[in-house]
Amino acid sequence: MKSDIQIAQEAEMLPIKEVAEKLGIGEDDLELYGKYKAKLSDELIERVKNQPDGKLILVTAINPTPAGEGKTTTSVGLGQAFGRLGKKAVIALREPSLGPCFGIKGGAAGGGYAQVVPMEDLNLHFTGDFHAITSANNLLAALLDNHIQQGNELGIDTRQIVWKRCLDMNDRVLRNTVVGLGSKMDGVVREDHFVITVASEIMAILCLATDMHDLKRRLGRIIVAYTYDGKPVTADDLQATGAMAALLKDALKPNLIQTLEHTPAIVHGGPFANIAHGCNSVRATKTALKLADYVITEAGFGADLGAEKFFDIKCRKADLKPDAVVLVATIRALKYNGGVAKADLAEENLEALKKGIVNLEKHIENLQKYGVPVVVTLNSFVTDTKAETDYVEQFCHERDCEFALSEVWEKGGEGGIALANKVLETLEKKESHFKVLYENDLSLEEKIETIAKEIYGADGVTYAPAAKKELKRITDMGLSNFPVCMAKTQYSLSDDQTKLGRPEGFTINVREVYVSAGAGFVVAVTGAIMTMPGLPKKPAAYGIDVNDEGVITGLF
Amino acid sequence: MKSDIQIAQEAEMLPIKEVAEKLGIGEDDLELYGKYKAKLSDELIERVKNQPDGKLILVTAINPTPAGEGKTTTSVGLGQAFGRLGKKAVIALREPSLGPCFGIKGGAAGGGYAQVVPMEDLNLHFTGDFHAITSANNLLAALLDNHIQQGNELGIDTRQIVWKRCLDMNDRVLRNTVVGLGSKMDGVVREDHFVITVASEIMAILCLATDMHDLKRRLGRIIVAYTYDGKPVTADDLQATGAMAALLKDALKPNLIQTLEHTPAIVHGGPFANIAHGCNSVRATKTALKLADYVITEAGFGADLGAEKFFDIKCRKADLKPDAVVLVATIRALKYNGGVAKADLAEENLEALKKGIVNLEKHIENLQKYGVPVVVTLNSFVTDTKAETDYVEQFCHERDCEFALSEVWEKGGEGGIALANKVLETLEKKESHFKVLYENDLSLEEKIETIAKEIYGADGVTYAPAAKKELKRITDMGLSNFPVCMAKTQYSLSDDQTKLGRPEGFTINVREVYVSAGAGFVVAVTGAIMTMPGLPKKPAAYGIDVNDEGVITGLF
Repeated sequence: MKSDIQIAQEAEMLPIKEVAEKLGIGEDDLELYGKYKAKLSDELIERVKNQPDGKLILVTAINPTPAGEGKTTTSVGLGQAFGRLGKKAVIALREPSLGPCFGIKGGAAGGGYAQVVPMEDLNLHFTGDFHAITSANNLLAALLDNHIQQGNELGIDTRQIVWKRCLDMNDRVLRNTVVGLGSKMDGVVREDHFVITVASEIMAILCLATDMHDLKRRLGRIIVAYTYDGKPVTADDLQATGAMAALLKDALKPNLIQTLEHTPAIVHGGPFANIAHGCNSVRATKTALKLADYVITEAGFGADLGAEKFFDIKCRKADLKPDAVVLVATIRALKYNGGVAKADLAEENLEALKKGIVNLEKHIENLQKYGVPVVVTLNSFVTDTKAETDYVEQFCHERDCEFALSEVWEKGGEGGIALANKVLETLEKKESHFKVLYENDLSLEEKIETIAKEIYGADGVTYAPAAKKELKRITDMGLSNFPVCMAKTQYSLSDDQTKLGRPEGFTINVREVYVSAGAGFVVAVTGAIMTMPGLPKKPAAYGIDVNDEGVITGLF
Repeated sequence: MKSDIQIAQEAEMLPIKEVAEKLGIGEDDLELYGKYKAKLSDELIERVKNQPDGKLILVTAINPTPAGEGKTTTSVGLGQAFGRLGKKAVIALREPSLGPCFGIKGGAAGGGYAQVVPMEDLNLHFTGDFHAITSANNLLAALLDNHIQQGNELGIDTRQIVWKRCLDMNDRVLRNTVVGLGSKMDGVVREDHFVITVASEIMAILCLATDMHDLKRRLGRIIVAYTYDGKPVTADDLQATGAMAALLKDALKPNLIQTLEHTPAIVHGGPFANIAHGCNSVRATKTALKLADYVITEAGFGADLGAEKFFDIKCRKADLKPDAVVLVATIRALKYNGGVAKADLAEENLEALKKGIVNLEKHIENLQKYGVPVVVTLNSFVTDTKAETDYVEQFCHERDCEFALSEVWEKGGEGGIALANKVLETLEKKESHFKVLYENDLSLEEKIETIAKEIYGADGVTYAPAAKKELKRITDMGLSNFPVCMAKTQYSLSDDQTKLGRPEGFTINVREVYVSAGAGFVVAVTGAIMTMPGLPKKPAAYGIDVNDEGVITGLF
């Protein structure tokens, strides 16, 4: 069987100019990065902004399991299938992070015959967007520490610095550091922390900014620290905004690549789905809607985190109206949720399926609360039996959900035609009555409780004393109108990753709260959330190589 | 008067495809980064490698002073002048570092009407080469710390880790850090240090590597630490080589841009000129020699560091034969060397000029030791008087040096025609008998002493005990055949930056020695060498901005 990178490298890509032509984009509106990647010009985005919008389709999933769900693979395959049906479709995805490439997860460009290409470029530096974010993040940190070194006119309390440095690397020793050691000229000693670049607030900001003006406004409002008398210190206070924006000038432009079947893919931005909102950029999605009749996008992790934030943060802020949701599951993952061990997932087990399908059920209910029609798809495995898939289909129909099998991993676009037709049918027959889950004027506590109860199925919420205190400070600063961004384990609907299926009788424990004032949301952290991953015993990096002719191997 | 960035932004650039055509490069051999930047393909480099070489002209300078010398400006202007004379010329320069852009120095793209463009792109992320180096450097560091975390099978002594993390940022608090704090899962606690990316050994390696095969060989040999029983641990030992090389695949390709007058400029790599060799990449220079009749390149700092390393490291390793040297001085800088305060440099002062010209004299003598014909040029200022420039001209002629005034800052290529003609005349009349200063088989101490005595004019060399010990270890490892890379202040021929002119009766004090086994040289550090700069009280970043239309201001 061919590996993903082999399939990707064997693909005959079209010059990106020809892919752009399908969307009516001329060469003058492309900033080429080699033959197969391009950024879309600001002029194009400005020019199309009054065109009517296409249909917006969100791909999300049940809670992730070690069995794998294939959300990106489904998104890409669905786009390819639309292409085969002669529809004008664009896929809008997140850019992958370098860190996990060298760690355990590998790349993130779909899989099998449903991939975006060039796969190596996408998984490595791509068009440099993440590097620009790393630079902007660390410039702000350097200006902050330099301000303290040069006399600390603003009165920054070095015990209350909340801005962290970042690297796009899995590097656990940088989680907790001490900086500024040495002599007087080497800075002021303090505790510091690095996060992975995708966890930087600048990543979230880039993905929510509508244009350069809005980007600068958001950058300027970033709170980096508090003063000795408790006042917030912002990037504007440090005179950092202009230089950061200059670093982000090109990163703000969406990137165009293609699928294995030449479907246009706009791949731009990639914020974490725990401490941030986990969606590709607003600019990418909005531009895609102007350029195509159908836009397929996805959100991070399962629907409890990804879809909730897509709706309540991204759609709220960008005034987007999703028309349909594709909810991805696998028979294997549903059986895993029903208590089957990973090694035994290949065997038919209707009992376990019935037990585990409650996870799917809860996500269907949740998505329906937003007023958007739901299509459930099973990402097929050869071990799935007809009895099993029939059971899921019946289950969905009983809940007013459409259903289709997807075989895109194995068959590419051809394997997604059933799903694409089901989506098209849904768009035609069922109108979306999209609404957000909660209103802006609720208190932050009310927002957190609404999400916990309505989406997670919790009985209530408890707060650590520090979290309570911070909620008060944020409210006192006048920022309680922000939506809430929940940082919770992706493996369970609860905040305990061992609770599979549809947990009941639990509370959500908010350990920490902070505001991302530039992005415009309040982060509520439950449990231990990792913002700087580590490398495993045998990192993927060991297997990556490039030969004398420049061909990369071992990326997956 | 217009600022550099205003002049640069008003320039009408040619599409880089057209600039490439001048060198016979077709579109298929360009990897475009927007309309005005491109990387040269590996296929092109391979295809031209048996073509005859053009003439190689090195631009270097007297010791830098606060008065400014204008080495890059002269290089660019000279290239422009060659273009005006109808010659097929290429300029081969280093890429600037992001750090100083936001600090004090500003960008590095020449100045006035002798600049390479697009200036903002070059000074910000350009084609991402430095970001790729940062990633590769920090991947190696992460794999190193992960190896220790996962059981330390190689027996790495955490007190003897020599590999440092890096960022392309001026950030003094990262000079001395402690990493790995927290709990068991957060790594092993140890002292760590960050350098600026241009000081990473990977930067030096990229600039000395002839192709991917050679790059991997060099990366693999990097010594990152020593074991408890004193054995070196390399990147190969950590299985890091392939993944690092994959990250550097595109960074290894030279970049093509243009001057304000459309002269092709290959801008690639930018190692520090103290702890590394300070020259653009071997691949860039070698490719330029195949593509053009005249290649103008430059080396960092003054000739005592830059030219010495260009000859003794780059030319030695890459088997290059320079045909002429242009030595840049200014009347102002010579008077500064003669003891005039910066504020008084505008006044004619022949006495000070006579006193300070000994600095120029020593550099002329030094360059002549390498057997290469020397052309001295004065980068003109309006305050220079005829008596002053006449004096310098006469001084040069008495020392068998050609002389020409340069007015490229004010007049662009037109202002460099006198210099260009003098260079052409020299190339025609004077044959180069290039030889390196010392042979490979001398001991490391003999090499250091040869440079100190012959080039700096020192009486001798003293070594700190740790330096002595390290020289022995390097020799015992069988690496004494490497050339020596001297890390010394650029402001004086001695290792005391206050000693201007032509110091005498001094010794060079080697404080520290280490081997860059991948780059292939031994670094001898004299005095305090800064590998992570800090930001000044008012960083340049405060003045940098980008407007709603994406136009950057305040870069200089």
